[in-house]
Amino acid sequence: MKASELAKLLGGTLEGEDVEVKSCGGLEEARPGDLSFCKDPKHIKLVESTKASVVLLPPEWDKGAPCTVIRVVDPNHACMTAAKMFAPPEPVRAPGVHPSAVVDSSVKLGKNVHVGPFTVIEKGAEIGDGAVIEAQVFVGEGCKVGAKTHIYPQVTLREGTIVGSECIIHCGVRLGGDGYGFNNGRREDGSVYIEKIPQLGIVEIGDGVEIGSNTTIDRARIGRTYIGPMTKIDNLVQIGHNVKVKGYSGLIAQSGIAGSTEIGYGCLIWAQAGVSGHIKIADGVQVGPQAGVPQSLDGSVRYVIGTPAESMKDFGGRVLVPKMLAKLKGEVKELKAKVAAK
Amino acid sequence: MKASELAKLLGGTLEGEDVEVKSCGGLEEARPGDLSFCKDPKHIKLVESTKASVVLLPPEWDKGAPCTVIRVVDPNHACMTAAKMFAPPEPVRAPGVHPSAVVDSSVKLGKNVHVGPFTVIEKGAEIGDGAVIEAQVFVGEGCKVGAKTHIYPQVTLREGTIVGSECIIHCGVRLGGDGYGFNNGRREDGSVYIEKIPQLGIVEIGDGVEIGSNTTIDRARIGRTYIGPMTKIDNLVQIGHNVKVKGYSGLIAQSGIAGSTEIGYGCLIWAQAGVSGHIKIADGVQVGPQAGVPQSLDGSVRYVIGTPAESMKDFGGRVLVPKMLAKLKGEVKELKAKVAAK
Amino acid sequence: MKASELAKLLGGTLEGEDVEVKSCGGLEEARPGDLSFCKDPKHIKLVESTKASVVLLPPEWDKGAPCTVIRVVDPNHACMTAAKMFAPPEPVRAPGVHPSAVVDSSVKLGKNVHVGPFTVIEKGAEIGDGAVIEAQVFVGEGCKVGAKTHIYPQVTLREGTIVGSECIIHCGVRLGGDGYGFNNGRREDGSVYIEKIPQLGIVEIGDGVEIGSNTTIDRARIGRTYIGPMTKIDNLVQIGHNVKVKGYSGLIAQSGIAGSTEIGYGCLIWAQAGVSGHIKIADGVQVGPQAGVPQSLDGSVRYVIGTPAESMKDFGGRVLVPKMLAKLKGEVKELKAKVAAK
Repeated sequence: MKASELAKLLGGTLEGEDVEVKSCGGLEEARPGDLSFCKDPKHIKLVESTKASVVLLPPEWDKGAPCTVIRVVDPNHACMTAAKMFAPPEPVRAPGVHPSAVVDSSVKLGKNVHVGPFTVIEKGAEIGDGAVIEAQVFVGEGCKVGAKTHIYPQVTLREGTIVGSECIIHCGVRLGGDGYGFNNGRREDGSVYIEKIPQLGIVEIGDGVEIGSNTTIDRARIGRTYIGPMTKIDNLVQIGHNVKVKGYSGLIAQSGIAGSTEIGYGCLIWAQAGVSGHIKIADGVQVGPQAGVPQSLDGSVRYVIGTPAESMKDFGGRVLVPKMLAKLKGEVKELKAKVAAK
Repeated sequence: MKASELAKLLGGTLEGEDVEVKSCGGLEEARPGDLSFCKDPKHIKLVESTKASVVLLPPEWDKGAPCTVIRVVDPNHACMTAAKMFAPPEPVRAPGVHPSAVVDSSVKLGKNVHVGPFTVIEKGAEIGDGAVIEAQVFVGEGCKVGAKTHIYPQVTLREGTIVGSECIIHCGVRLGGDGYGFNNGRREDGSVYIEKIPQLGIVEIGDGVEIGSNTTIDRARIGRTYIGPMTKIDNLVQIGHNVKVKGYSGLIAQSGIAGSTEIGYGCLIWAQAGVSGHIKIADGVQVGPQAGVPQSLDGSVRYVIGTPAESMKDFGGRVLVPKMLAKLKGEVKELKAKVAAK
Repeated sequence: MKASELAKLLGGTLEGEDVEVKSCGGLEEARPGDLSFCKDPKHIKLVESTKASVVLLPPEWDKGAPCTVIRVVDPNHACMTAAKMFAPPEPVRAPGVHPSAVVDSSVKLGKNVHVGPFTVIEKGAEIGDGAVIEAQVFVGEGCKVGAKTHIYPQVTLREGTIVGSECIIHCGVRLGGDGYGFNNGRREDGSVYIEKIPQLGIVEIGDGVEIGSNTTIDRARIGRTYIGPMTKIDNLVQIGHNVKVKGYSGLIAQSGIAGSTEIGYGCLIWAQAGVSGHIKIADGVQVGPQAGVPQSLDGSVRYVIGTPAESMKDFGGRVLVPKMLAKLKGEVKELKAKVAAK
């Protein structure tokens, strides 16, 4: 698209050469052919060094730019508008079942459901109105998928899994795999045995939940592993059997919640953090990145960090230990000398 | 199912309203329509606050309950029996190859093998008697899958992978991907090169192994990456090339074992722990959650924790350091005052 | 293969019984039927205890061996040659589109492209000359895959993803999933909302990149998430939206890079390490295993370790803290006694 055309669409004014614009990005990452934007004069250095071909700037900007400029009242907003123009078109998933899909005759498909190629939907499953089940998905026996839920390619829902409405399930998510549970011991003859404990429950996902790529959520041993409404789960997260996430929480990438633990409303579990099994995290508590939580958190501390997890203040003190120790060592040395001299 | 019907099936006595029961779960997580259970009077508070519609209680229970009660001799056992009734029916995987599957004519299929839709089995592979290969699985050239092994949907076995008998391989497992190996350096002209080291070996999985969803096990550079019999691996675990897990061990979710390391018999690697490459973990050693093991463990310490991993006692001492330091600081201050006063 | 035949192929001399050789492996892991090798007399113990049937040894070796020996000038090299003979044959991926694949009529396929069974390639995608797209892969709308790139089974490329030439993408990789981004807050009526921020950008992968099994790389919010040329990524790695990896770097298994962070040229991020969002790691910096990096690293320290990440020296000092503290405690005790005695 020509910069002049873009200026028109964004309701702005063109200054400089009418170059071609193909994409957009932040000032630092932008390349020739990109549109970028800046609102605040304090980022002048980033503007000066950007490789973007066009920059969106506010009317009052008087610091120049190394490229074509489009003046707009709100550069951030205009860039979002432009980003939508340059974004890959969202694929249309028209209602209908691809002829290659294997859908059992007993499956109840709602209105306007899309089922992609090579998808398998097994007997007794129910798919709500307007749901999109993309290519190469596996929906096991008796699963329920709510209205307007979008399941991306190569997701697996083992038998009995329930997914609410308006959920987004990204590629490679595994719902309803067996929980990890074994009985070990020795037989009378001294030999070791390891027996699988049957995993008889299901996974139930509430409404409005989003689950990131390759995340795994195990079915309950008995009852349900439950992810409450509006919970947002990132990529590569592990959620053990019988975990209960009450709702409106965030679980960031590569974090893990061990079996039977309860996560309250509005919690945030940061990346690579781990929460032990059979404990409770109170509503609104945040578990910092890489933290390890061995015990229940009652909410008296709102943010924990470290392994074992503690308050930010305690963790900060711990980080300073070597310095404090060195200082104290110096003091003791001095004191020793004084005592020896007396 | 009516509570009265359930009481009959469990050989118990109904007390209270003959309500409908649809599922089951622990006292805390149960919802209306659920069956729950309690054996021990010390959990009386959980019984009082449960939302279950029916609770299984022992004959001697005299503390009442807020819902319908079924008295049975062994509530735990009765609940497991009931859980099996309420569990989603285990899908029947009848012998036979789905017409959509692409199975090379040279593949040797044992008796009573199930092959699901859209599964690909490449040339020279051998599938043992009674094995179940579900939908959308990829079995590469020359792979061997043992008798009665169950492979869930969307698993990939790269060429040459060997899986023993009676294994369970969950959705999204990747066996036999290339190990991570590169030669780096600079050419005479100063330019950098990064060359792939061929990964010529295979993955071999022993009998009775279970592997959780989205776990990855790399093929050996030379020889085999080996997972010994009865090893139980959880979800999202990473096992590098040429690792050897002798057998009867457990690897919990999101743990990782770097290349060429040997894990002894009966070890337990807890969640999110990491074990360095080219070392040995002695039989029976446990590596705690999030621990990082940089060196071989000879078994003189049975449980290690922390990064770098140390004994529980040493780790406990480390956790207490800030408190001990503060105490010592106080003592030094006092001592200083005393010395100054003399 | 007979040992005599192998000796001939490797240009070596056979000593001992002409046994059958089926595979190869290191001295410690080798089993009967295996070929192994040793060059250095210091590994004599491993040779003595190996279970290999044949060992490759140099002409000057005078310490004997418990099995058949093949003398060769360079045992390491000879073993690599043998390993190639015993390796599972690399599957032939002949040019052509499998009849079961669903390839949109608008897709531009280069010369000699292989497309495997049950693969889906959506409209507007372009596949370069000699590329191999194996079975059960999903290539979304408008994706571009470069020449000679090899995509293993069950990979997903969401719409708009760009992959360079001569890349290797292993099983289960997810490129272009939505980044994690939500706006939270309270409405005027006090109710909580969580709104998805549109993820309008793409993922772009440079030439010569290798990506390990089940790794996830999110699409940018605006612009591109960029993985520069020759970057080598291991299994189960998470890369957030708008991350930029300049190139020639390594990211080891289970590490994670949070959104908008920039990784310089020639960096090495070790296993299970985490790098925070919106920071920069300078060229050539290494982040040690399980390290957590909260702030930008300018390269003044070349290797960091620990959480929060610090230099090897500082981390080493921290590890020694309990010992140093105990020593200081002793000194203070002694000093107290002295002061009291005066």
